[in-house]
Amino acid sequence: MNATAILHNIGLLATPIGSCAKGGQEQGRIALIKNAYLAMDGPTILAVGGGDIPEGIAGPQTERIDAGGALLTPGLVDCHTHLVFGGWRQHELALKLQGVPYLDILKNGGGILSTVRATRASTLDALVQKTLPILQAMFRGGVTCCEAKSGYGLSLSQERKQLLAVRRLKECQPVELVSTFLGAHAFPEEFEGDHEGYLRLLIEEMLPAFAQEGLIEFCDVFCDEGVFSAEQSRRILRAASALGLGLKLHTDELRSIGGAQLAKEAGAISAEHLICLNEEGIDALAHSHAVAVLLPSTSFYLDKPFAPAQRLCAENVPVAVATDFNPGSSPNHSLLLSMQFACYKYKMAPEAVLTASTLNAAAALNRAGRLGTLEVGKEANAVLWDAPDLDYLFYRLGNNPAKAVLRRGVFYGF
Amino acid sequence: MNATAILHNIGLLATPIGSCAKGGQEQGRIALIKNAYLAMDGPTILAVGGGDIPEGIAGPQTERIDAGGALLTPGLVDCHTHLVFGGWRQHELALKLQGVPYLDILKNGGGILSTVRATRASTLDALVQKTLPILQAMFRGGVTCCEAKSGYGLSLSQERKQLLAVRRLKECQPVELVSTFLGAHAFPEEFEGDHEGYLRLLIEEMLPAFAQEGLIEFCDVFCDEGVFSAEQSRRILRAASALGLGLKLHTDELRSIGGAQLAKEAGAISAEHLICLNEEGIDALAHSHAVAVLLPSTSFYLDKPFAPAQRLCAENVPVAVATDFNPGSSPNHSLLLSMQFACYKYKMAPEAVLTASTLNAAAALNRAGRLGTLEVGKEANAVLWDAPDLDYLFYRLGNNPAKAVLRRGVFYGF
Repeated sequence: MNATAILHNIGLLATPIGSCAKGGQEQGRIALIKNAYLAMDGPTILAVGGGDIPEGIAGPQTERIDAGGALLTPGLVDCHTHLVFGGWRQHELALKLQGVPYLDILKNGGGILSTVRATRASTLDALVQKTLPILQAMFRGGVTCCEAKSGYGLSLSQERKQLLAVRRLKECQPVELVSTFLGAHAFPEEFEGDHEGYLRLLIEEMLPAFAQEGLIEFCDVFCDEGVFSAEQSRRILRAASALGLGLKLHTDELRSIGGAQLAKEAGAISAEHLICLNEEGIDALAHSHAVAVLLPSTSFYLDKPFAPAQRLCAENVPVAVATDFNPGSSPNHSLLLSMQFACYKYKMAPEAVLTASTLNAAAALNRAGRLGTLEVGKEANAVLWDAPDLDYLFYRLGNNPAKAVLRRGVFYGF
Repeated sequence: MNATAILHNIGLLATPIGSCAKGGQEQGRIALIKNAYLAMDGPTILAVGGGDIPEGIAGPQTERIDAGGALLTPGLVDCHTHLVFGGWRQHELALKLQGVPYLDILKNGGGILSTVRATRASTLDALVQKTLPILQAMFRGGVTCCEAKSGYGLSLSQERKQLLAVRRLKECQPVELVSTFLGAHAFPEEFEGDHEGYLRLLIEEMLPAFAQEGLIEFCDVFCDEGVFSAEQSRRILRAASALGLGLKLHTDELRSIGGAQLAKEAGAISAEHLICLNEEGIDALAHSHAVAVLLPSTSFYLDKPFAPAQRLCAENVPVAVATDFNPGSSPNHSLLLSMQFACYKYKMAPEAVLTASTLNAAAALNRAGRLGTLEVGKEANAVLWDAPDLDYLFYRLGNNPAKAVLRRGVFYGF
């Protein structure tokens, strides 16, 4: 069968192999092919290899694209973002540098609830318009799939508006978006004295409505001290599971309150943040099916400890790395920068971090069968980097070396 | 007098004022003008202000450029780089992450002397070709003036080759380059047992030759443990001073051996690195005319402590921030990223960091009278940022929001 297109003269092709890679050793085991080619049948990878292109793959109709000797990796997957929101929070930076505690910023109208107010005050159109250039910048940085959590609306109509913005954005740009419902991001101001009332709204109205409308694929809960308790989180996850949604948990960011154990118990696909994860939590994840989604730029921005990546790897927990892009704790949309932070701060090898932001990130979004590696039958999503090898990609800070992105077989040169 | 060009509709103009800003309070005092204009007479600033453009400035020949409501700052000045070198050292990253000590890397042919070998093996043309895209990326990131140290040649002909590459680069791209001789960067392998011989070569041959050929403006010495002693450094600086060169010191990076005190004694224009600076060193700098040039991305990349910026500010030492761009300890050419590291890691306010990488960086290059602020009579070098305010510039990580650069009155839109 002839390929529709062949990317040839790839100096080095670097890709993880197989399904979700568990733990340090396996996670760092990637395939490296020099002088490689990638043949496509429309949106799908038809063949991949090194040396001469085998006979029968290239026909007269086959488009040939010269990679110019550059490095090719799978398209990056940013598996944890709060993509859609109103406003920014740059004025909190100065306060933070002066040492003003977060709770004081919150009391003075800042913090997450200020983003809730700004998001509620935005129209659907305004949210789409604001987010589009950010998504374009992510794409230009090599991201071909991106998760987007709701959680700045915190009411039926406002959460729906955020989710509708994601649906609209799916249609007008090339990054595949994955929609996660995070109504349990915070308790909204109007339910200050009635948390039970908000839980009921969330479980009895929002979840069934959004699931029925096909607006959400996953349900996430911020299970942490001062946010949603383990018991409250359990109730939400059970309701989401009954609706057929995949489960995620924001947890162990502020303190360990049993979120990792709940991720195991509930069969969550991922446990995310994990800065304060203790040995019991690591053990729970090691005996679960969850991917540990780590967010190093959040630790950097908030000047907090970095998640225990080495311990997780040692216990064979699959690790993913994402940006956590959001206006309060990670105003960073560059997944490559987060990957570099992971390398330097978690002391993870470039190979393991590549797996973390491709294959394992795809696994955290239930897409490892289709995305995350450059293997025959998978979607032809890849990034061509102006780099001689993988180390260089992590070593050269302050750089965006993405030269081109392949998305479902379409070549976008920059 | 009519302006040749006017940049108008500047949403916010942010600039330090005057000459080198001493210390924390003064360093953070910048001028902020909303709805501003910048009028130019060729390469020079003719007028700057807010509100309506005064009569008589705009004439029929005046070119009008709409800034689109964006943020304008002075052009950035990167006052400490090792711009020109052969090869890269990305393969050392993996060793570093595995915990291999630098001295072992050095023994196995890595480290600074491997860059010396690669630089010596490069032709002058190859060095120019390799450096040009890096300079272009710096310019695209807002840098309009950049220092370039030699120090990877370490012989008369090889140091000259590096300096000639800088001279060639001055002519073929818009960033102003400042040439610093750093023959005292390391002892070359061939003088392993004869440090005195290398000192004599440096003092008696290299310095006079390069000064006479007009290839160098400053002389720098790496005065630190295991490199050049305070006494050796003193001899080199004296010889350089006698030739009319400005003096700089790489010092207190590895250990305090009196380099800051020597900077004071020798009347150096700057003391650079300063990670290990102790109270005696801070006191010496506080009673000197030196600018403290701090290099936060080096601390980040090497996982070392950050220089005591707050203490320096408190003692009214003017602080500059630069990239230290080089292949071994700071493979980062983005000055904005270094400025963000300064903000987060030194806990310096955005205003103080802006001064550090414009006015004070210009002062560290003896150019504060001509560069570093947006004031009448200075060179019209500026950056237009896609940002609503200065906080945003520091807050949005992983981003290059430079939309355009003015260099000597010429507008380069991106």
